[in-house]
Amino acid sequence: MRLDHPPHIIAHANIGGRHEGAGPLGDCFDELSRDSFFGEKTWEKAESAMQKRVLARALEKAGLGPEDLDCIFAGDLLNQCIGSAFSLRDVPVPFFGLYGACSTMGEGLVLAALALDGGFAATAAAMTSSHFCTAERQYRMPVPYGSQRPPTAQWTATAAGCTILSRAGRGPRITHAACGKIVDWGITDANNMGAAMAPAAFDTLSAFFKDTGTGPEDYDCIATGDLGHLGREILVDLFAQSGVRLGERYVDCGLLLFDRKGQDMHCGASGCGCSAAVFNGYLLEQMERGRIRRLLFAPTGALLSPTSSLQGESIPGICHAVLVENG
Amino acid sequence: MRLDHPPHIIAHANIGGRHEGAGPLGDCFDELSRDSFFGEKTWEKAESAMQKRVLARALEKAGLGPEDLDCIFAGDLLNQCIGSAFSLRDVPVPFFGLYGACSTMGEGLVLAALALDGGFAATAAAMTSSHFCTAERQYRMPVPYGSQRPPTAQWTATAAGCTILSRAGRGPRITHAACGKIVDWGITDANNMGAAMAPAAFDTLSAFFKDTGTGPEDYDCIATGDLGHLGREILVDLFAQSGVRLGERYVDCGLLLFDRKGQDMHCGASGCGCSAAVFNGYLLEQMERGRIRRLLFAPTGALLSPTSSLQGESIPGICHAVLVENG
Repeated sequence: MRLDHPPHIIAHANIGGRHEGAGPLGDCFDELSRDSFFGEKTWEKAESAMQKRVLARALEKAGLGPEDLDCIFAGDLLNQCIGSAFSLRDVPVPFFGLYGACSTMGEGLVLAALALDGGFAATAAAMTSSHFCTAERQYRMPVPYGSQRPPTAQWTATAAGCTILSRAGRGPRITHAACGKIVDWGITDANNMGAAMAPAAFDTLSAFFKDTGTGPEDYDCIATGDLGHLGREILVDLFAQSGVRLGERYVDCGLLLFDRKGQDMHCGASGCGCSAAVFNGYLLEQMERGRIRRLLFAPTGALLSPTSSLQGESIPGICHAVLVENG
Repeated sequence: MRLDHPPHIIAHANIGGRHEGAGPLGDCFDELSRDSFFGEKTWEKAESAMQKRVLARALEKAGLGPEDLDCIFAGDLLNQCIGSAFSLRDVPVPFFGLYGACSTMGEGLVLAALALDGGFAATAAAMTSSHFCTAERQYRMPVPYGSQRPPTAQWTATAAGCTILSRAGRGPRITHAACGKIVDWGITDANNMGAAMAPAAFDTLSAFFKDTGTGPEDYDCIATGDLGHLGREILVDLFAQSGVRLGERYVDCGLLLFDRKGQDMHCGASGCGCSAAVFNGYLLEQMERGRIRRLLFAPTGALLSPTSSLQGESIPGICHAVLVENG
């Protein structure tokens, strides 16, 4: 979808935990906490606290109060998306709850951009989060159990990101938005999300290139969400097979957030918070410094649940994309 | 939000289970199944099958194929919304995943209407479902355990509904849409959802009346989603306290779906599928017959999870609304 009145990204903020601060993008966070509970009593409440703080910080940077927002698009990985619902319990702003797994930052940006472009809102926010400890115990094993992780596993980022968009003001603009289709190539290994999500990224990005008559060379940076090492390789291969070279301009947020080998993160970072924190920190900062002028941001999500995996189902993937342009 | 190009509801379909068929609206279903597994091996797969069949039926009634849809807005109550994701795995249509608990039919209609009104899509679908057995084992107790239900409990509908909207064509139109705020008045009893959600319905409906300069008497029918007996009473009281009489035109889908006493359903029906099935059957049929010309449809959702309740949290409520008008 090409937007007639491309909204501006007037502010953005991110927050991370200990590992995120120790990684190569440690300097690109608005706030870092060494306490994985973020001052709360449970990890779920910690995740809500992260969203609460990142929204407050983004609003502060925009010079706005919550009452200035016309709506918020938010979601997370927790059952019934309680990370978002409880963070927004005291925020009197119309709320659209989303579930797009790790593609949520993309889904939120797409819908916020449409709401603004269509004139339904003047100012809107998109927000999401993930937390290593809530995700591990919900999707895999209780953290204290210390189970061994296979080499294809990724490390769920303890992080949150929030983008404030407005019809007026200054800042990079979302000029195009793409809603992805579900793509499922039959991967059943819940420890190999990269492989499950790569075909969805291929589908959405191919459609984006085709619809806009462009190729990878037309963008300064193409960033997928959290395909990780293996998923990135698969995506590069899929494009190579169709005669398209993604090249050096293609990065994956899951490979940017951590020092994969130094921090022993196996295939890289994952979680809604991964792409949200990298986009709302490093990537938008690169745009502000003029190092990136055209950013194609395409977070991917794996729409499985522990129940679906136990019932032998494969993993449906999805990828939503936005094109962010300077000036 | 007042829509400049109000989209038409060109088709709608619903599907239900045994209890839904035995209730007072049994004749208002497109399809009823006596098999609570809907031909599948697990209840979760049954819920996906319901969504798959209701989408196919709605498309058939519209004379369209899936390829004619520009996007689908769908969600459900299951962890990670697998009811929707797995039903749409083989449907090559752009998919926005939603989590709005039992307000999902409302959230989907709001967003689909905005996408159409804004010109981002020509044809779109909104869909949701719930299943008594998946909800019971996820939120409360395994069904075979046969635990006693308190008098305030509601019965999760085994049902799904789908609406097809289009910029062109015939049928009632969505002329106004309202996105709700989260409202939490501190109810902590997860067996008393009606009380938790009623304040959200009050908030959204009050805002709707205020913004449009109307009152309950301006609508032929005002239908909340699944407040049930107690929640309905609370909403009537809240309006009475503010000097507004909802009157006989106000109904709750949770009280329409079942014969509450004859079927021993305690406070009535609940679940995303309740309002979805009543809207996409009985209510829209009443509009087609000219018995309702202006329908204010306002499904409510309780944004809790079993984890949040175990951690002592209260229940955040939300309510999204659309105004559907004939002619």
